[in-house]
Amino acid sequence: MEYTKSLNLPEALQTLSLDGLENVSDEIRQFLIDKFAEVGGHVGPNLGIIEPTIALHKVFDFKNDRLVWDVSHQDLPHKLLTNRIELMEKFHEKGGASAFSNPAESEYDNFIVGHTSTSVTQAVGIARARDIKGEKFNVVAVLGDGSLSGGQAFEGLNNAGMLKSNFILLLNDNEMSIDFNAGGLYSGLARLRATRGTDPNNIFTFMGFEYKYLEEGNDLAKLIDALEELKDINHPVVLHIHTLKGKGLDFAVKHPESWHYGIPFDKTSGAPTVKHDENRALIVNSIDKTIEYIINKPDSYAIIPGSPLLGRKLQDTVPERYIDTAIAEQAAVSIASSMAKFGVDSYMIIASSFLQRAYDQVLQDWTLNDCPATLIVLGCGVTPTDAAHNGVFDIPMLSNVPNLVYMSPTNDDEYVKMLKYCASANFPTAIRLPAGTIPELEISDREVDEIVGYFGQENGADKLCISTASGGVLPKSEFIAKSEVLHRGSKVALLGLGIMLDTAVKTARLLKDIGINATVVNPRFVSHLDTQLLDELKDDHQLVVTLEDGIAEGGFGAKVATYYSMSDVKVLVRGVKKEHIDSLKFAQILERYRWASEMILDDIKEALAEV
Amino acid sequence: MEYTKSLNLPEALQTLSLDGLENVSDEIRQFLIDKFAEVGGHVGPNLGIIEPTIALHKVFDFKNDRLVWDVSHQDLPHKLLTNRIELMEKFHEKGGASAFSNPAESEYDNFIVGHTSTSVTQAVGIARARDIKGEKFNVVAVLGDGSLSGGQAFEGLNNAGMLKSNFILLLNDNEMSIDFNAGGLYSGLARLRATRGTDPNNIFTFMGFEYKYLEEGNDLAKLIDALEELKDINHPVVLHIHTLKGKGLDFAVKHPESWHYGIPFDKTSGAPTVKHDENRALIVNSIDKTIEYIINKPDSYAIIPGSPLLGRKLQDTVPERYIDTAIAEQAAVSIASSMAKFGVDSYMIIASSFLQRAYDQVLQDWTLNDCPATLIVLGCGVTPTDAAHNGVFDIPMLSNVPNLVYMSPTNDDEYVKMLKYCASANFPTAIRLPAGTIPELEISDREVDEIVGYFGQENGADKLCISTASGGVLPKSEFIAKSEVLHRGSKVALLGLGIMLDTAVKTARLLKDIGINATVVNPRFVSHLDTQLLDELKDDHQLVVTLEDGIAEGGFGAKVATYYSMSDVKVLVRGVKKEHIDSLKFAQILERYRWASEMILDDIKEALAEV
Repeated sequence: MEYTKSLNLPEALQTLSLDGLENVSDEIRQFLIDKFAEVGGHVGPNLGIIEPTIALHKVFDFKNDRLVWDVSHQDLPHKLLTNRIELMEKFHEKGGASAFSNPAESEYDNFIVGHTSTSVTQAVGIARARDIKGEKFNVVAVLGDGSLSGGQAFEGLNNAGMLKSNFILLLNDNEMSIDFNAGGLYSGLARLRATRGTDPNNIFTFMGFEYKYLEEGNDLAKLIDALEELKDINHPVVLHIHTLKGKGLDFAVKHPESWHYGIPFDKTSGAPTVKHDENRALIVNSIDKTIEYIINKPDSYAIIPGSPLLGRKLQDTVPERYIDTAIAEQAAVSIASSMAKFGVDSYMIIASSFLQRAYDQVLQDWTLNDCPATLIVLGCGVTPTDAAHNGVFDIPMLSNVPNLVYMSPTNDDEYVKMLKYCASANFPTAIRLPAGTIPELEISDREVDEIVGYFGQENGADKLCISTASGGVLPKSEFIAKSEVLHRGSKVALLGLGIMLDTAVKTARLLKDIGINATVVNPRFVSHLDTQLLDELKDDHQLVVTLEDGIAEGGFGAKVATYYSMSDVKVLVRGVKKEHIDSLKFAQILERYRWASEMILDDIKEALAEV
Repeated sequence: MEYTKSLNLPEALQTLSLDGLENVSDEIRQFLIDKFAEVGGHVGPNLGIIEPTIALHKVFDFKNDRLVWDVSHQDLPHKLLTNRIELMEKFHEKGGASAFSNPAESEYDNFIVGHTSTSVTQAVGIARARDIKGEKFNVVAVLGDGSLSGGQAFEGLNNAGMLKSNFILLLNDNEMSIDFNAGGLYSGLARLRATRGTDPNNIFTFMGFEYKYLEEGNDLAKLIDALEELKDINHPVVLHIHTLKGKGLDFAVKHPESWHYGIPFDKTSGAPTVKHDENRALIVNSIDKTIEYIINKPDSYAIIPGSPLLGRKLQDTVPERYIDTAIAEQAAVSIASSMAKFGVDSYMIIASSFLQRAYDQVLQDWTLNDCPATLIVLGCGVTPTDAAHNGVFDIPMLSNVPNLVYMSPTNDDEYVKMLKYCASANFPTAIRLPAGTIPELEISDREVDEIVGYFGQENGADKLCISTASGGVLPKSEFIAKSEVLHRGSKVALLGLGIMLDTAVKTARLLKDIGINATVVNPRFVSHLDTQLLDELKDDHQLVVTLEDGIAEGGFGAKVATYYSMSDVKVLVRGVKKEHIDSLKFAQILERYRWASEMILDDIKEALAEV
């Protein structure tokens, strides 16, 4: 990066010759390849967009003009061009650059972004504000790497298409949608590529955009010419560029789906140089168990919104039972719900953070319609990831939805038993899998009993029954949830949800040292309380401690606290504070939320002194 | 309906002559006009789709074939054709048909639907299930009256476009999107209409559909021919029909936006025959106050996803400060957030039930990015509406979102003060407005103090600050919320949120009769507790009663119960049970959730006996 570092970036790009720009391009590509090989990252997306990014900074001045990234995992070249080489040298290390767009890092980043399909609406907002305030500058949105399939992008196109002012959309078409493109849309894009953009059938012009096509999407000179032509345009325009995902690494170009994200690898062969982080054993096992379960259950179908990690394995083994909805969470939930209602054993597999996109479909298409589909939520709970991918909202999001039974397994054995339970249930079920770097858990190896939980009877109805407008409702009656009691003691009960059961066990051990024989419970169910057990605990327990790894407000502990709110049992609720959190390490999480068993012990001692 | 009633419907339609079908059509139109004039309803949508519905039932046999409605407020002709004439005679009365699709009413309804844009994904699920199970039947989805602008519809098209089997999409294009169509998309549809479907630029063929156009979308014979041609087709096809919204009522045709939904009216003049339900005073006032506020604040902008009620008034008075995003809630939240971040005083106005569509945008585009936009949530809390439009989830949905200050006014004066507070806040704010039929409230007329609430200091930071990946987070510090104490007593405190303050006042009066001088509090803030007040109450209160009109789990009372969970203060949490509810009348709501002040009194007495 010697040459690139010598420049006053990004301004210097505006006056640099093509040779100079190509030097920068080469250095960035080499830097990124070296860095990805060393620490891993979004290999394909970033290597494919180096030249377009340089051209953007050459043609526009993003101190005045505005650049909006979506699925911002493709913005590392942009980071290198905007004063963040040193941060990027420590990429994936303490003090280094984050993997996503973030205004706290640079004035050249306008939003914190991590999800797909957001750039068009965000840029429309900027353009609207600009026009309202009578300002003049270019608004450029980058859409790509599959974001077009998300409903929000479409809503954005519809809104951008009605602007009467400057709006430039750079569509980065690398023929991929994180995973292989799924959906009818991509046949249309393929025809546009095949005709070099001349096919009159064009979704962008249909929606009111002017449209330009550039086949050589990694050709700096042509990119610059194309963008120069659009600069200061007075209406919405799309520049559709055809780029090469993974450019610069032969194996990444050849297998773009596998090289969307790479762990550290050998630059010549592409072979991984580390094993999957063994601290993450519980997640990896769970994903493997999920795939194994689907594969071995011939009537089961997996419905997944664009995921190379899961999708590839299913595509390779049971392609006929794997439905990729493209990056479209709303569609995934609605389609799977409908499939289940019409008799197919359906499993949606979606990360907690992305599932937020389908909250209404969870409420309406799925649970209101009582469709017996199963949802497997990946990456739940607080994670060391960036804020936009944090899984920490799953419990407030799902545990307050009527007619949905939401479970939290504590190890692989229990997870598989929960999967079997879901298959037999005739109502909506969901299982949360943990996220983040999890230290080895003592509870991992034990075998657990079969899952017990069912809707009881109310007014003779055990099915959800929505009445006509004539009035009323016969809801599903109370759900009978059965927890697992690992140890029955007295005075203090520790309820550890999911991975937090381990902390409960460790805390119980510390309590034993001070003469307290604490009860230890694996609640199993997040959405419903084991009220029989909670009632029993009233007899000989003064304090119930709830431990959960998600946002505590609206969560599991709050349900327990509400249940006991008219009794003498005290409840200590431990979870994540209601805050947006970014890239906390495990040690910071322990400290910030007082999750270490020693800290919990101190709080229990203090509480008992008060009681 | 004499002739129609004499038929064995819907089967009889399959063998009926055109004359017979036209008889049925005429009778249905007259029936609906009479019924709407009498009790109100979705006038325009239903009158425009009578002939297409008859044609569907003529050509297909929906005992075997499957018909999926979206925005199901246009399915009343379908109800009349499927054994529900008697239910429809009692439309909008006890024991009558609901306004929306509902399998509990008829085997010809496949889903409970009320939101837009759902039909395509739901039908894709049916088609997938059919193909998996090796069955043979037609799957027909109706998309229309503006549903195309919603992201879920687009995700559905993308998924339908990749099917290799029978899939028939009937696009009901009435040139409207509930309100006037907004967005670039509709220019494309207009070109298709203008060219009678021959324009090669066609979003449907772009996405992999075969495409047919029928200009005479209300011509029975042509509709039947067109559908006959598509029956048993082996791939996805769109039939785009051009229909006349409000057909049969001149004034409804002339002003389709005003006649999307009508209250009882005179059939000749269209003049309303009743005043707006005066029981709904608080909502209507609030909407009027909102519009008045926007109109009188020259730097304010309203961003609304397709709403004729609100949109028309703003369009008529301040069109330059009104942005209709089309029916696209994700876009509305993202665009308004971005506008606010870039300096525009932005107000999103969205109904609680529809806001569910934008949960991820609330979490990410808006609050994670700390954009100081204001959200006005209409129709919050339990309502006598159908289940798909029930506003009952707003508190679990919004009160657990970090960095968002959510408020609940108790009357118009307080609402206007909250609006002013929001304008001055440099963080995300939201206000919930009540829904449903609200009896006149004693609290309506009082004047209230200015709103006080602010983020305090933590680590010297008063702005949300997301760090780089180097670690950690400096969140906004604790929010200082100030409640309104209407009366300071002792022993029992009643915290009545929003309209429930009235119940708190009434309950306090009953308590007075038995010698208890209860404290009465208007919490004002839903998302944050007035911890100073709650701490003070510990001194001389044994019981705190929380009253809220939304789902209690994940709600306000649960926060209070959690706050007091380590103290001796008992908390009685009163709200809506976690259940999907449909068309409950106010009296049923009082009974079901024990909201009548007499019932609350009994529960307090019982609780105090225990304490």
